[in-house]
Amino acid sequence: MSYRLTNCPTLLTPLHNTIHKITMTSKSTNTVWHHATITRAAREKLHKHRSVILWFTGLSGSGKSTLAHAVEDYLHHLGISTFVLDGDNVRHGLCSDLGFSDKDRVENIRRIGELAKLMTEAGIITLTAFISPFKSDRNAARNLVPHGDFLEIYCECAIETCEQRDVKGLYKKARAGQIPFFTGIGSPYEAPENPELVVNTQNLSLEDSVQQVIELLVERGIIHLPNKE
Amino acid sequence: MSYRLTNCPTLLTPLHNTIHKITMTSKSTNTVWHHATITRAAREKLHKHRSVILWFTGLSGSGKSTLAHAVEDYLHHLGISTFVLDGDNVRHGLCSDLGFSDKDRVENIRRIGELAKLMTEAGIITLTAFISPFKSDRNAARNLVPHGDFLEIYCECAIETCEQRDVKGLYKKARAGQIPFFTGIGSPYEAPENPELVVNTQNLSLEDSVQQVIELLVERGIIHLPNKE
Repeated sequence: MSYRLTNCPTLLTPLHNTIHKITMTSKSTNTVWHHATITRAAREKLHKHRSVILWFTGLSGSGKSTLAHAVEDYLHHLGISTFVLDGDNVRHGLCSDLGFSDKDRVENIRRIGELAKLMTEAGIITLTAFISPFKSDRNAARNLVPHGDFLEIYCECAIETCEQRDVKGLYKKARAGQIPFFTGIGSPYEAPENPELVVNTQNLSLEDSVQQVIELLVERGIIHLPNKE
Repeated sequence: MSYRLTNCPTLLTPLHNTIHKITMTSKSTNTVWHHATITRAAREKLHKHRSVILWFTGLSGSGKSTLAHAVEDYLHHLGISTFVLDGDNVRHGLCSDLGFSDKDRVENIRRIGELAKLMTEAGIITLTAFISPFKSDRNAARNLVPHGDFLEIYCECAIETCEQRDVKGLYKKARAGQIPFFTGIGSPYEAPENPELVVNTQNLSLEDSVQQVIELLVERGIIHLPNKE
């Protein structure tokens, strides 16, 4: 039994007027129903762009989440389907059962990698904004998806600058011993060795940082900017 | 500092020719970057349809996954952004650390609920196809999203029929004692009391089953079928 709607001439007929005709060789109730499968490629075609993971990594306060949201804003206004995964929508939901032990931090990044993979399969450009301090965890996430689908973007910013900004007051707490394994103080940050992009978020404006990411996407053929003419 | 691209006349200018001008009142590197936020509503507008969760529930062999994929196929060919979550893409990935103990099954459905919530926020019609035998777990997933965004679809099929089909050979294994807590044999299935839709997958053809789901989406104003004229 096969089941496809492709090229079906009655597809655009209102359901209530004319029953949509699906090609089926059997309507027997004891027949095994076969799977129709919409592929990632079909979803990318629908969205008119490739899907990919933009994995932002860097110290707390280096600007990952802000940059990811700014890039999303830019892409969205180009008509691109996007989603940002960050602490706000993951730590309180999917990973609400996890703490900050070594084991839980590994599991946190593992789930985010799996989540980003599914979002990418759904045809969405998925931007993740987590410190993700360990190379092994980032590489595990990279290895979940086909080569070229994982773009690691290192938000490079000196810890002194991050600590000076201390937007969330976390460095102050960490220095006071209230956050035992805070990255950069009680726990190391392993900078990427071969990221697809390094954005110097210490010195660049947000505008210029966004531009670097967009240029990466254009160079890689992920998106195409419309011509003025 | 504000940051929006909306109504920006230079948005469609090639990046390499003219630097895209983002409205910013400050480019100082020590300024706190403010978040741009693309909302779910903006993503729904981009996709030209509402997003929602279609939560298929029923016994193993009742046709959940096949129906979900067939509905996805129908929706995709209407230009709707969709994704199906089922055992194939969740159990081996996001939930690969979970077994089939009571605790793990609860956690499995919890994560699927959180995942479906994020997909819905990404503007996608998300179809989940899991036995999800317990009311409490399904209700917990329902309560994660705003009222009206969770449509529970009960695939009603007698266990005798499911067992007779036994597509995956699981009932045979369960009867042989190889699967201790198999739903319907060693563990109960709690049928929904007030699902948004009951599809009699025992007697209906796949075509008619798909139509019932599509009609539900039309009635709820989630999708609009194009007119023939």
